[in-house]
Amino acid sequence: EQQTSFEFYMHDNIFVSNPSGIPVAGANGSTTTFAFGTVIIIDDALTLGPSPTSTSLGRAQGTYLVTSLDASTILLTFTAVFSDRNGTLSFHGSDKITDPTREIAIVGGTGIYRFAQGFAVITTTSSVNFSAVLHFNVTFQH
Amino acid sequence: EQQTSFEFYMHDNIFVSNPSGIPVAGANGSTTTFAFGTVIIIDDALTLGPSPTSTSLGRAQGTYLVTSLDASTILLTFTAVFSDRNGTLSFHGSDKITDPTREIAIVGGTGIYRFAQGFAVITTTSSVNFSAVLHFNVTFQH
Amino acid sequence: EQQTSFEFYMHDNIFVSNPSGIPVAGANGSTTTFAFGTVIIIDDALTLGPSPTSTSLGRAQGTYLVTSLDASTILLTFTAVFSDRNGTLSFHGSDKITDPTREIAIVGGTGIYRFAQGFAVITTTSSVNFSAVLHFNVTFQH
Repeated sequence: EQQTSFEFYMHDNIFVSNPSGIPVAGANGSTTTFAFGTVIIIDDALTLGPSPTSTSLGRAQGTYLVTSLDASTILLTFTAVFSDRNGTLSFHGSDKITDPTREIAIVGGTGIYRFAQGFAVITTTSSVNFSAVLHFNVTFQH
Repeated sequence: EQQTSFEFYMHDNIFVSNPSGIPVAGANGSTTTFAFGTVIIIDDALTLGPSPTSTSLGRAQGTYLVTSLDASTILLTFTAVFSDRNGTLSFHGSDKITDPTREIAIVGGTGIYRFAQGFAVITTTSSVNFSAVLHFNVTFQH
Repeated sequence: EQQTSFEFYMHDNIFVSNPSGIPVAGANGSTTTFAFGTVIIIDDALTLGPSPTSTSLGRAQGTYLVTSLDASTILLTFTAVFSDRNGTLSFHGSDKITDPTREIAIVGGTGIYRFAQGFAVITTTSSVNFSAVLHFNVTFQH
């Protein structure tokens, strides 16, 4: 069993043209607001640096749900599919997006990351309206 | 690696005024029934005792899906965010709500519960219509 | 800690009469297409062999989300409830359904599979329209 750490950036673009995340359900049938109950499906780019044109590492494919009554918190549940590393990591955790730093769990992995378990420390690098670039610092045993 | 056990109560109130859980999707577009396909987003209170006015421990933020054709079973997937313990636990599992006792998995954790893995034994303490108080007895290694 | 491996087949029938999976949300409110954003809730049969009339092993209860812009990839997140083994396994991972072989993570378990962690290798045994029989070869430590 070894411990591995690395970093990446995740680009989540919603409520824009050519979005990487789309709301598909929400309270009272609304998919145009970011409120308790909103369900967003994502296929977000993962890159080495904070710029969207930085080296591509793969995709974050999954969902996040707005899970607090005040819309400050999401449940992030997705798989990071790394294009050149031949492995994936599955994430599951509560992300209070208004906090400068927060943490979610790594609950599994495949390929070179089989049996992965650990955590990711997340910070928001930039955000415009509801789109954001997130920095992930992941640490896991496998 | 240590093993930790503790208990808490979860208060899930749906189809009431000031709900802590709201249906956002369902079969044939319905969000007013509890049937195969219903998706409910939750921000449920967690307390030390069975009363909703008992000491607050945090929130259960996530979702449950009605995942059996007979509506007896849900997939519970949420993070328990403990306000005073500086940690979270992520849960994922099938809960046959008509059984007196059932078990779901703990698939990860953060903060003081990093690398958590284990299980929760769930019983229903009380229920009125589709709202319920659930007792969780959690055991995990971390 | 022991390592366990076994196989089963999963029968996912959508967009048919008497479906085992139903779309409940999707892009632009559509639940009649299989496209980026579609949310499908499943209660799929698990069997010993590839035929739906083969020995029943239990049910796969959960959801899959179409999580790639080109609709080639789903996030599979469900619990396999084994009827005669007194245990469950929770799965979470990205499944590129157009690949002949792919892998998702096993992130937890209950009953005789408490503390399970591992992976499943998935192949498509047969598919008609969007319904499919999938072969799972699971390996996990517990």
